[in-house]
Amino acid sequence: MERVAIIGASMTQFGQREGEWIQDLLAEAGIECLEDAGVEADAVEHLYVSNMASGEFEGQTGVPNALAHDLDAMPAYTQRVDQTSSSGGAGIFAAWQSVASGASDMTLLVGGEKMTHKTTGEATDVIASLTHPVEYKTGVTLPSFAGLTARHYLERFGAPRESLGKVAVKNHENGVDNPHAQFQKEVDLETVLESPIVADPLRLYDFCPITDGSAALMLCPESVAREYTDDYVVISGIDGATDTHVVHEREDPTVMGGVVESGKGAYEMSGYGPDDIDVAELHDMFTILEFLQMEGLGFAEQGEAWKLVEDGHTERDGELPINTSGGLKSKGHPLGASGVAQGVEIYEQLMGEAGPRQVEADVGLCCNVGGFGNCVITTIMEAAQ
Amino acid sequence: MERVAIIGASMTQFGQREGEWIQDLLAEAGIECLEDAGVEADAVEHLYVSNMASGEFEGQTGVPNALAHDLDAMPAYTQRVDQTSSSGGAGIFAAWQSVASGASDMTLLVGGEKMTHKTTGEATDVIASLTHPVEYKTGVTLPSFAGLTARHYLERFGAPRESLGKVAVKNHENGVDNPHAQFQKEVDLETVLESPIVADPLRLYDFCPITDGSAALMLCPESVAREYTDDYVVISGIDGATDTHVVHEREDPTVMGGVVESGKGAYEMSGYGPDDIDVAELHDMFTILEFLQMEGLGFAEQGEAWKLVEDGHTERDGELPINTSGGLKSKGHPLGASGVAQGVEIYEQLMGEAGPRQVEADVGLCCNVGGFGNCVITTIMEAAQ
Repeated sequence: MERVAIIGASMTQFGQREGEWIQDLLAEAGIECLEDAGVEADAVEHLYVSNMASGEFEGQTGVPNALAHDLDAMPAYTQRVDQTSSSGGAGIFAAWQSVASGASDMTLLVGGEKMTHKTTGEATDVIASLTHPVEYKTGVTLPSFAGLTARHYLERFGAPRESLGKVAVKNHENGVDNPHAQFQKEVDLETVLESPIVADPLRLYDFCPITDGSAALMLCPESVAREYTDDYVVISGIDGATDTHVVHEREDPTVMGGVVESGKGAYEMSGYGPDDIDVAELHDMFTILEFLQMEGLGFAEQGEAWKLVEDGHTERDGELPINTSGGLKSKGHPLGASGVAQGVEIYEQLMGEAGPRQVEADVGLCCNVGGFGNCVITTIMEAAQ
Repeated sequence: MERVAIIGASMTQFGQREGEWIQDLLAEAGIECLEDAGVEADAVEHLYVSNMASGEFEGQTGVPNALAHDLDAMPAYTQRVDQTSSSGGAGIFAAWQSVASGASDMTLLVGGEKMTHKTTGEATDVIASLTHPVEYKTGVTLPSFAGLTARHYLERFGAPRESLGKVAVKNHENGVDNPHAQFQKEVDLETVLESPIVADPLRLYDFCPITDGSAALMLCPESVAREYTDDYVVISGIDGATDTHVVHEREDPTVMGGVVESGKGAYEMSGYGPDDIDVAELHDMFTILEFLQMEGLGFAEQGEAWKLVEDGHTERDGELPINTSGGLKSKGHPLGASGVAQGVEIYEQLMGEAGPRQVEADVGLCCNVGGFGNCVITTIMEAAQ
């Protein structure tokens, strides 16, 4: 089967986008991606919109149709992809399938979310609705799970609290060089460790912010890609997998089954293993998640990811740079956009377009986590040869 | 490329499902579809959930994960497909792509919506949010468009008001024999024509009801289908297309571009044309839509569909039976389920499992309309040979 290529990428400024709504953000990223790819709107055959909750956040649904209209891409087929906080990764999978199945020779994926016009409480309510009612109605929200899991991890594996803080410090450091990041500022370890407690032992700086933003990717068969450019990226492997919807039913709280299974599928399809990955974007919605994904994807043994972070292994000049974009932590986490933006960062790294964030990389991976690992999509990309 | 087969189908009772919520309805159809197909839950690789608005209707998101859990289908990949009122058709397209791309060898599609616990006003508000704000905030809702279009159609083409009423009469007659239909009762033309005005000239009986319900289909490659059964259906053609998001920008209000384009794509892929279709399920959310789809899909010339209805051409014993299931009009319209249930009816007709509704058919078509034709998916199926 012909490989699926990525020939363009874009993302808007992440942060607080006052006075704009989801449709504006999607159109901004969409138009920029068309330009970046050098593709005319009427060449787009399928248009996927990754978005969790425009209806809940803005009282507006049908945004894919609005976007097809705004991009003048009619009669392109369009559809919304929702997989909660991994909607963006699910969008990459949907877009990949649209091309790999032969249904579309040019697929534009745009992910976005507009959240900051809501209070933190209102936004959190929408997010909490993705978990099982038994959980969220009794107050066990995603941050609670993160706190519980972090405490368990630190105690069981003898990891110092500081190691989690260093994830935040590293990702903020990377975000400084990302002009699209919500927070382009460094934080020191002390600030992280002394920030207000959210879910003990995790504190404010262990959590990603609430964000508005959008990101886009252009996918097509490799043969079509070559008509546009000599430099492109291919998706070498992609897979998605679920874990239990009720978190307490999992056997080991430090093993994210969805990460393990989707990673296994993506590795198998690509022919690559953990050692072949040169750069990765992981879903650091909470600092502890970066450890769990590193271990689930085979970058570290169980209970040992923290050591790699302590050693600087995952810094930009380390052996496996993780979250060179700044991650969700400093770049921000507009739900539907985040997984797409992970893809944008890997694309730019593989294309050598990452500017001051550039690392040496031929093969990259992104892992987008829905809920507390309820559904995870892992994508492996490589520079075309 | 190997063809995609359908090896199982199910639907729940449509209607008012008090005390149940979306997750119950999805699980009911999902379990029944697994049984109908003779497939074990752990053989399911991808699970798609067609649903427009569980967050808005019930404050619950993440339902695909809940369903994977309830069916014990983990670690199957799962994702929600939303294309407003055509979410079900979009689900068939997504499920088709998952199989045709090689990503999944067994895909379960479950569509559902729980709506009747809301007042009609509340439910209508959610549905209206799919249109452009300029439209719905000034009161031009989908029923308004239907009224405007119906008036235009009747005047321009000299069609009698009665011809629209006969669509409702026919579909109610078919619904009598569908044990899953919301309304299993006949209505006479007089009742339709004297029911309360909703959007002149359309009256209450020109509109589908608000409904709870769920429906499911099991898709796999044809080679896998043969391991399970000798009798199955294949998807011969499928395509989706958008029209303008703002309805007043369309050149001719009686031509639904999304119907025309998606139909063209599905015909081309299947090698069939309008004359080859033996049975069809059309999206009769409003009676006038049945005319517009008949014309857009080439079953009638522009402005002449009403004559075929007057002649009995689309009745169960006519040349092209339309909406043998009862259609959205009498079967009901649980948004995310409707397009899937169209597929269930065509599957059952082609398998000879439609009981008292059975017609002679080798090739069937369904057309699922999102918004007022904003995005349309057309699927052509045939009995395996």
